[in-house]
Amino acid sequence: MVVIAFTSVFFPVASPPPNSSTKTSGNLSGMPARVHTWGIKLKSSFGSSRGLQVTAHLQTPPKVNGTNVGVMEDPKSEDETMPSPPPVTFINQLPDWSMLLDAITTIFLAAERRWIMLDWKPKRPDLRVEPFYYGRLLQDGLVFRQNFCIRSYEVGADCTATIETIMNILQETALNHVKTLGIQGDDFGATPEMSKRKLVWVVSKMKVLVDRHPTWGDVVQADSWTAAGGKNGIRRDCLLRDCKTGDILARASSLLVMMNKETRKLSRFPNEVRAEIGHYLVDSPPVLDEDGIKIPELDDNTADYVRTGLTPRWSDMDVNLHVNNAKYINWILESAPMQMLESHESAPMQMLESHEVASMTLEYKKECRRDCAVQSLTSVLSNGAGDLADSGYIECHHLLRLEGGPAVLKGRTEWRPKYTKPNVNGRRSAS
Amino acid sequence: MVVIAFTSVFFPVASPPPNSSTKTSGNLSGMPARVHTWGIKLKSSFGSSRGLQVTAHLQTPPKVNGTNVGVMEDPKSEDETMPSPPPVTFINQLPDWSMLLDAITTIFLAAERRWIMLDWKPKRPDLRVEPFYYGRLLQDGLVFRQNFCIRSYEVGADCTATIETIMNILQETALNHVKTLGIQGDDFGATPEMSKRKLVWVVSKMKVLVDRHPTWGDVVQADSWTAAGGKNGIRRDCLLRDCKTGDILARASSLLVMMNKETRKLSRFPNEVRAEIGHYLVDSPPVLDEDGIKIPELDDNTADYVRTGLTPRWSDMDVNLHVNNAKYINWILESAPMQMLESHESAPMQMLESHEVASMTLEYKKECRRDCAVQSLTSVLSNGAGDLADSGYIECHHLLRLEGGPAVLKGRTEWRPKYTKPNVNGRRSAS
Repeated sequence: MVVIAFTSVFFPVASPPPNSSTKTSGNLSGMPARVHTWGIKLKSSFGSSRGLQVTAHLQTPPKVNGTNVGVMEDPKSEDETMPSPPPVTFINQLPDWSMLLDAITTIFLAAERRWIMLDWKPKRPDLRVEPFYYGRLLQDGLVFRQNFCIRSYEVGADCTATIETIMNILQETALNHVKTLGIQGDDFGATPEMSKRKLVWVVSKMKVLVDRHPTWGDVVQADSWTAAGGKNGIRRDCLLRDCKTGDILARASSLLVMMNKETRKLSRFPNEVRAEIGHYLVDSPPVLDEDGIKIPELDDNTADYVRTGLTPRWSDMDVNLHVNNAKYINWILESAPMQMLESHESAPMQMLESHEVASMTLEYKKECRRDCAVQSLTSVLSNGAGDLADSGYIECHHLLRLEGGPAVLKGRTEWRPKYTKPNVNGRRSAS
Repeated sequence: MVVIAFTSVFFPVASPPPNSSTKTSGNLSGMPARVHTWGIKLKSSFGSSRGLQVTAHLQTPPKVNGTNVGVMEDPKSEDETMPSPPPVTFINQLPDWSMLLDAITTIFLAAERRWIMLDWKPKRPDLRVEPFYYGRLLQDGLVFRQNFCIRSYEVGADCTATIETIMNILQETALNHVKTLGIQGDDFGATPEMSKRKLVWVVSKMKVLVDRHPTWGDVVQADSWTAAGGKNGIRRDCLLRDCKTGDILARASSLLVMMNKETRKLSRFPNEVRAEIGHYLVDSPPVLDEDGIKIPELDDNTADYVRTGLTPRWSDMDVNLHVNNAKYINWILESAPMQMLESHESAPMQMLESHEVASMTLEYKKECRRDCAVQSLTSVLSNGAGDLADSGYIECHHLLRLEGGPAVLKGRTEWRPKYTKPNVNGRRSAS
């Protein structure tokens, strides 16, 4: 007898219902519900018929150095359909079985002591290699999901993932979404039509809300999707969850616009680009509500602290040859808050040791290139929104500006006390 | 009928031979061959009897919201043995099957339309969650192997992984080795006996040879092991390979010594710590030969360029509250080489744009804490070792020193021209 295991059999709830081509789903945990058609006819380049079709045949295991090993050699199947999209319902998954099972193609039939190879060949060649490192598309490509294991060099001195790490994960998930959809041009996240026009994406505004900072070794799951964002931009939303518990760790929403990488000027939204990505935009409210809080532009009189002479490092630069948006945070978090509390007669580093970022809103005004010198201004609202001061919460306003020049970034951060202190083993104790 | 699949069946070559407790193996591709017993009797806490013992029982799939799903719920097996260590033979593995198969515990028997759950419960609870994100032990724990997918924020402006990223991967693999062995105390990489004595590991010397810098999305495989290193230290070696081709990308060898985190003084090697780790030390030559090149200590007269006023950022600090060893590189690579070429009347950034690091040797002299101000000195050997200058190779010497104080680090780097220029899609073209 032959055992044939289909992905759809492994996941009775995994396959979208027959009407999934309408691109609707339950709106669970902030996941998008409806596609934003934007007046563009939906294309089905990743249509609903992406069931994994397998061809089963018996064969002896391949050999390496004359010894049988369970390694699949170049599948010969001509079937190039994609595996079924997994369900968007979040399940406490230990491990992420659907991701795992996508790759199970060789199993051993003990009764007959023979190997069964289930050939499959995904449409995109890059998915053939180490599929569980890349993440995968959900909901006909509207959503991209990827897991990340927090690494030792991504945590701060307090053993928790830094806010920069969280932003990095959001960026990586977004870029892999575009790459996996097969619409990546010559630059990170840019479509072919954008690359033709020398256009790249730049972040205009970003808001991040962090419920809990993961620690070293935690596996987090990022879900990312895009929506229309004003006249000339798109909105990129992301949910970060603890893979073990399913708890939401962070939510982020950012607005991206296009910049010509030669003229460095912002661009209108070309119709050709709209045609490329329009059918991957969802029509759902932002994962973070607009709070309507206007961030004031600090100056020398209103700032509690001014730090000068900050310069980019080579490692701050991204492929667009400007300081990566996630790197601005270092200038805010690593300079101002520490010094700021010194001016409040607290011990240096007290705030970064005793508090963690609970939320952050950044408005990017101007790009910052390799030769820029930047000033960082911060003011502390000792009685911030509500009773923040009483409860140990701190609210700050920030400004980064070129020395003797215009604003680069306006920001607002909220900090909460670290109630627990994790160690390298992930155990948390009262701090 | 029942299908029972043992890990050892999946891997006919995976299980060590019956005499594997002697801890010998073929010395393939620079992998260590013999354990360094150091006069300590070998313990078998992770002995050779770690075959995966599975208990198979038929059951209906667990339910979520009333629907059957292929998610394993809390296994009840009392069997706590570990899975067999995989073979050390390197196989072009697409994907890493042995890592994958460790986690296959629930399969569907199509003929009988029933689920079979193969219960297993690894000894270490952290391995129960997302096992393929963590890496695994080889050769009875002597070697640790982990795969990494290079992320967008780990590449530089040229789309290739920075030398800092490569060092980060080495660090993460080494720390996960200690963690997975179950001998981690309260600090990164420290054993329980070290933690009792407030001791942490610090890097004393490091040498890295990079054959090729991977690009965004490349999956690299790191193998890491330790050996005795002088009277009071250990040597940590690492091999980095391209998972797709098996090509060696980088080799690194570093010397680690213990520091008391309160007195900040180096420590002798306590016998109790020796007893903890002695049986995980291999007796093999370094993965990189000692080149015998002595790095001169630069001063204001011998340096071509001196950059002052460098200060650590908060993100440079690690859990030991000093600048992480991998961060020193930024001061060397991101400041000196660019400015250095300016003084040689070349365009700024030319060297980092046209050349890549081929090798790097760093000798750490003193730790650098949050309030340090550092100077970076560099000299360029225009006619470096051999005919480096003619072939476009550049050799540099470096010194980092506290302002008005002692040396923090001596270094030597070799740079080669970038013959190809990768783009974000991983394609390389002549630069």
